[in-house]
Amino acid sequence: MGNHSSINIYLDYGATTPVRAEVLEVMIPYLRDQFGNPSSPYLMGLEAKEAIEKARSEIAHLIGARADEIIFTSGATEANNLAIQGISFANIHKGNHIITSSIEHLSVLNTCRFLERQGFQVTYVRVDRHGRVEPDEIKKKITPKTILISIMHANNEIGTIQPIKEISKIAQERQIIFHTDAAQTIGKAEINVNELGVDALSFSAHKIYGPKGVGALFLKKGINIRPIIFGGDQERGFRAGTENVAAIVGMAQALRLIKTELQKEVERESLLAKTLLEGIIKKIDGVFLNGDPLLRVPGNLHFSFSGLDGQKLAEFLDEKGIQVSTGSACSSLHNHPSHVLEALGLADDLAIGSIRINIGLYTKSEDIEYVLKVFPEAVEKCRKIGVDLRKKETILREKVLEAYQTGRGCASVKKLAWAYFINKLIKRK
Amino acid sequence: MGNHSSINIYLDYGATTPVRAEVLEVMIPYLRDQFGNPSSPYLMGLEAKEAIEKARSEIAHLIGARADEIIFTSGATEANNLAIQGISFANIHKGNHIITSSIEHLSVLNTCRFLERQGFQVTYVRVDRHGRVEPDEIKKKITPKTILISIMHANNEIGTIQPIKEISKIAQERQIIFHTDAAQTIGKAEINVNELGVDALSFSAHKIYGPKGVGALFLKKGINIRPIIFGGDQERGFRAGTENVAAIVGMAQALRLIKTELQKEVERESLLAKTLLEGIIKKIDGVFLNGDPLLRVPGNLHFSFSGLDGQKLAEFLDEKGIQVSTGSACSSLHNHPSHVLEALGLADDLAIGSIRINIGLYTKSEDIEYVLKVFPEAVEKCRKIGVDLRKKETILREKVLEAYQTGRGCASVKKLAWAYFINKLIKRK
Repeated sequence: MGNHSSINIYLDYGATTPVRAEVLEVMIPYLRDQFGNPSSPYLMGLEAKEAIEKARSEIAHLIGARADEIIFTSGATEANNLAIQGISFANIHKGNHIITSSIEHLSVLNTCRFLERQGFQVTYVRVDRHGRVEPDEIKKKITPKTILISIMHANNEIGTIQPIKEISKIAQERQIIFHTDAAQTIGKAEINVNELGVDALSFSAHKIYGPKGVGALFLKKGINIRPIIFGGDQERGFRAGTENVAAIVGMAQALRLIKTELQKEVERESLLAKTLLEGIIKKIDGVFLNGDPLLRVPGNLHFSFSGLDGQKLAEFLDEKGIQVSTGSACSSLHNHPSHVLEALGLADDLAIGSIRINIGLYTKSEDIEYVLKVFPEAVEKCRKIGVDLRKKETILREKVLEAYQTGRGCASVKKLAWAYFINKLIKRK
Repeated sequence: MGNHSSINIYLDYGATTPVRAEVLEVMIPYLRDQFGNPSSPYLMGLEAKEAIEKARSEIAHLIGARADEIIFTSGATEANNLAIQGISFANIHKGNHIITSSIEHLSVLNTCRFLERQGFQVTYVRVDRHGRVEPDEIKKKITPKTILISIMHANNEIGTIQPIKEISKIAQERQIIFHTDAAQTIGKAEINVNELGVDALSFSAHKIYGPKGVGALFLKKGINIRPIIFGGDQERGFRAGTENVAAIVGMAQALRLIKTELQKEVERESLLAKTLLEGIIKKIDGVFLNGDPLLRVPGNLHFSFSGLDGQKLAEFLDEKGIQVSTGSACSSLHNHPSHVLEALGLADDLAIGSIRINIGLYTKSEDIEYVLKVFPEAVEKCRKIGVDLRKKETILREKVLEAYQTGRGCASVKKLAWAYFINKLIKRK
C-alpha cells in the first residue's frame, strides 16, 4: 500500500474498498480459464452466461428483487445515468419535470444538468443543516408534469441517511417514478427494494469489497426505460456490451458476504466510530460533526475544524499513515468546498476545514487508538498553518474580486477572476 | 475450461480471449493492495491516478496518439456509442447526416438507429460480395449535412478489412469526422491513428488477452464530443465514474505485449489459417470462404457449407472439444442469419451453413491437425441432419406465410408469422 509511513490506516472506505480475498478468488477463474463470451453458443459461452445469471439471481434475492429487475452496468455512475436519463427520456410523453436534491452525487446532479439542456425542468430541493431532505418539501414541488424523483439513500460526504420510505410513499401516491442512489448504503444497511418502496436503485461493487468497473441498477418490472448504450441485446437490451463476467460474479460474492456479516459489522464499525468521535470531541476544541448525528451511514464521520485547511490536515495525516478524505473522492481534487457543504449552509471557513472519515471492514480498535493519538497534534499543526493560508486566500479573493470588477490585475489574477465567478455561477444555477 | 471432451481447442478468439498471465499479474496489485480511488487526495489515490495516466500514455504511444486523446470506457461497445452519439450530438449545428455501412457491429448500427429516432439521417452503404465498402460509394453519399462517417476497420464476422486510409482521405477533403471501430484489428494489425488518418477509433481489451469491462476511444484533439455518462470529471469530463484502475493497467499491458509480438504472431496465425483453409477446401466439397480472400483479419476464416446448419456444426465440434462460432458472439444466440451475411447477398441456405473460426495466441499446429481430422466427419454428419432441417424450415415457412396472408393457422404459427415479418422489416429498414 505504498505509503510514507510504515503504518497504514485506511479510513476512506466511502471512496473505495480493496477487493477481498474471497471475492478475488471467485473472479480469477473467469479471467483465466472460464473466459468465454456469454453470448457464445458453445459450452464455455453458456457457462459464462450461466455464471452471470446466477449472480443476477443472487443479487436480486439479496435486495428483495426479481432477477429480471437487475441490469448490470459499469458502476453506480452509469447506473445513475441509465436510471435518470433512461427513465426521463422514456417517460417524456407524461411530463418533463424531475425532482432531486441539492446534495446528490455528481453523477445525478450532472445528469440532471444535462437533461435541463434537453428541455427537462429540474427542481433541486434544499436540505436542512443536517443534510436531510424534508419529504414535505418534495411533496410541495410536485407538479402534474413530474415524472421522476431521485433522492440518494445516504449522502456520500456527510453520511446523512434520507427518509426514503416516506418519499417513496409520496411518489407512489402521485404515481411518480422514484429512484435512489444506494452506493453508500448497499454495504451498510439492510436494503430491500420492496420495503424501501423504490422503483429504481443504483449501486456498485467497489464500495463493498468488490471490483471497480461494475455496478447494477434495480429497475422495477413495468417501469419504462430507454438504454443509454446501444448494441447487442445483452442485459435484455437495456445495456449492450460484452458482460464483465468476472466482475459480475465478484459483485455477487461481495454482496453475499457483506449481507452475511452486516449486522455484526455495522455494530462493530459504529462502536469504533463512536470511540473516535468521542475521543476527538474530548481532545480537540472547535470541532463540529457534520451530517445527521444519528441517521447516518455506520462508520461515517464528517468533521469541520475551525481555523485549518482540511486538505492540509489530510496531507499531514497521510504522512502519518492515515488516509482520510476531504470530501467525496470525485470532487476532492478540486480545491473548493463541495456542493454538499455549501448546501448545508456551512460557513466557508468551516467548509474549508472539513475531513471525511469512513471506517470499514479492516479497521481495528488499535487503529482508532493511533488516530486519536496523532489527531490533536495534526490539528494543532494545521491550525498554525491554517491561519496564514486563510489570510492568503482572503487577500487573493479580494484581488480577484477587484480584477473582476475593474478589469485590472495581472493575467493570472484575471484568469482566476473568471474561474471564480463561472464556478459560482455553475454552483448557484 | 469445462468441456464435454478432454480436448479443448478454442478457435473463437474473435469473440473474446483469456486474460494472459502477464496481464493478470499487473492487475492483481490494483485489486488488492493498491486499491486507491484515483480521485483521492492522499498518496494511495495519487498512485492509482499515476497508474492510469501511465497506462494512458503507453496506450496512446502504441497507437500513435497523444495521451490526452485517449478516453477510457467500459469496452468497445461504449466507445462506439460515445463516438457516434457524442460526435453526432456535439456537431448537430453543422448537419444531421451520418454515413456508415450495412455490416457494422450492432453497437454502431443500433446506435445509428437510435440517432435516426432523434432526427438524424443515416445512410447505410452497401458492401460488395466480399464485404468490402467501396470508398467511391461513400463519396457519392456525402451531402452538405454529413457530419460523421463510421466504418469499421475490419468486420467481426467475415474478417474483411476496409480501405480505411482511402475513406479517411475522402472524409478529410470534405472536413467530415471519421470514426472507425478497431475492436477486431487492434491486436492483429499495426494500428497508427495518424497513418490511418482517423479522427476517432474504438477498441477493447478483451479481444487482446486483456480483461473484459474496459476499452478506449481515441479522439483526435479538437474534435467536439458530448459525454453519454455524466458525473465526476474523470477522463477530463468525457466519461464519469470511478476508473477501473486494474483493468486499465491490464489493458495497457495487454496492448504492449501484443504489439511486441505482432509481426511474428500474425505470420504464425496466418500460416495456421492457411493450413486450415487448404485442408478444409481439399477435404470437403461445397465449402465457400466468405469475406475478402486476402484483405482479412489474420487468423480469421469464415466458411459456408452447403446443406447443413452452422449451429449444428458448431455444436458437433463443441462436443469434439473445438469451439467455433456461428457468427459474431453478440448475435449468435439468435437462430437467424446475421445482418452481415445478408448484406453480402449470401443465399439463405449458405448463410445458415456458416461458421466463423478465429485462430489466436494459444492455437498450436497440432490443434489445426486435429481440427482437420474431425471436420470432414462433422460436416458429413451435419449434412445428413441438415437436409431434414431445411425441409422442416421450408414447411414451417410456408405455414407461416399462409398464416400471415390468410390469418389462419394455430396460435404459435401465427405468432411466428408476426415475428418473421417484423424481423424482415427491421432488417430491411
